[in-house]
Amino acid sequence: MERSNAVEILAVPGIPLVREGDDLVALIGEGLARGGIAPRAGDVFVLAQKIVSKAEGRMVDLATVQPSPEAIELAGKVQKDPRLVELILSESVRVVRARPGILIVEHRLGFVMANAGIDQSNVASPYGPQQALLLPVDPDGSAEVLRARLSARFGVPLATIVNDSFGRAWRRGTCGVAVGAAGLPSLMDLRGLPDLFGRELQVSITGHADEIAAAASLVMGQGAEGQPVVLVRGLKWRGPDNGASELVRPAAEDMFR
Amino acid sequence: MERSNAVEILAVPGIPLVREGDDLVALIGEGLARGGIAPRAGDVFVLAQKIVSKAEGRMVDLATVQPSPEAIELAGKVQKDPRLVELILSESVRVVRARPGILIVEHRLGFVMANAGIDQSNVASPYGPQQALLLPVDPDGSAEVLRARLSARFGVPLATIVNDSFGRAWRRGTCGVAVGAAGLPSLMDLRGLPDLFGRELQVSITGHADEIAAAASLVMGQGAEGQPVVLVRGLKWRGPDNGASELVRPAAEDMFR
Repeated sequence: MERSNAVEILAVPGIPLVREGDDLVALIGEGLARGGIAPRAGDVFVLAQKIVSKAEGRMVDLATVQPSPEAIELAGKVQKDPRLVELILSESVRVVRARPGILIVEHRLGFVMANAGIDQSNVASPYGPQQALLLPVDPDGSAEVLRARLSARFGVPLATIVNDSFGRAWRRGTCGVAVGAAGLPSLMDLRGLPDLFGRELQVSITGHADEIAAAASLVMGQGAEGQPVVLVRGLKWRGPDNGASELVRPAAEDMFR
Repeated sequence: MERSNAVEILAVPGIPLVREGDDLVALIGEGLARGGIAPRAGDVFVLAQKIVSKAEGRMVDLATVQPSPEAIELAGKVQKDPRLVELILSESVRVVRARPGILIVEHRLGFVMANAGIDQSNVASPYGPQQALLLPVDPDGSAEVLRARLSARFGVPLATIVNDSFGRAWRRGTCGVAVGAAGLPSLMDLRGLPDLFGRELQVSITGHADEIAAAASLVMGQGAEGQPVVLVRGLKWRGPDNGASELVRPAAEDMFR
């Protein structure tokens, strides 16, 4: 397997605040032109989940949400807005942990995450502060549409990742992970590659898209400035494309809990 | 907080196979000279755990290991070499999961990981194949010694990370993580930074060193070629230095299991 010797992680400059219906491909094109960056074959565009969700209209005005009795009861336990809890439950298949200030669920897409990934920070809205932003309906699908459109626009094969920051079992601190991906192996199987001494590699299936998502988070950051689109250049990979849904570990095979 | 706009991840070329007693700083210096790379203030050197362990003489000849009755019994259950299981238990404080082919433990340093991080692939030895490689005794201490010596040698402040690939709860595929770090915040607290709309950031403590470790893994790779030292350039961070031990989440505060 050919190996990357040098990888660059570049912020796409000047991406404005995104609103429902905005054309992310157009915004990225303008940002790249501003930065004098021409996409190359194999470049990976990593987009913050927030801007994909916003463009897709996944903002919900809490004033329109009617909490169920179940949501009201759970909201008391976790000390959150019952309307927010209603949204979290509507996005989830089960509650993993509920403690004051903490609500960790299994999202309908299989992600185990706080608050079903629903975000109340950095959410721009013409309606005021009572807004919540859900994950895209189908982040792998979103990544695929973006991949196809970006590749067509720039005339080279590109890959895309939609990333988010997740808390983790066993480890403190959030880490960037891929919630959607297209055009690359999210899960990369290196089994069968010999190690330096001819034995088969022991650790041999990598969370490739998660490693890229984490790398992009270093430039994207969490702070006020907002650099929600990052280009990762110089990666080499092998194996078939697969989406970020491949990174969800079915509970039955999860030995790390 | 100032933000990174561009980050480079560069393999330090031509690092040879490392043996006990090798001077990693000298090997890195030779590799940098070969690659025409001059370290700059703020550069982060990420070293694969394997080469740090090898240089520190953490190789154990399995022929010298006498398995305990407990190790023999567990080895039958997990279908591994009883001598290897003896080493795993000697490095661990408890067994998290034991299934045929799988032995996940809590390492004495707090890491929850397969086989206590003991590796049998890519282990060079003059003694033959019956070798196992343990984690460094004190990876944060190793990182600090390397940080101080590299900074002195090159006359600029540098940071270091010792990385490894871990399997994860909830997610498939391994991901690079920091098992040791010095000269930067491993856990970076962004609380108090306002978001774009003046609210306090929700996701605000990042596993900074883990994100760097994951990024470096993209270049380091798992395959036969071996690029065990990677330079990460262009990062900006804030907050006090803390070691990778800060990334270990105490069980009592772990809500993600």
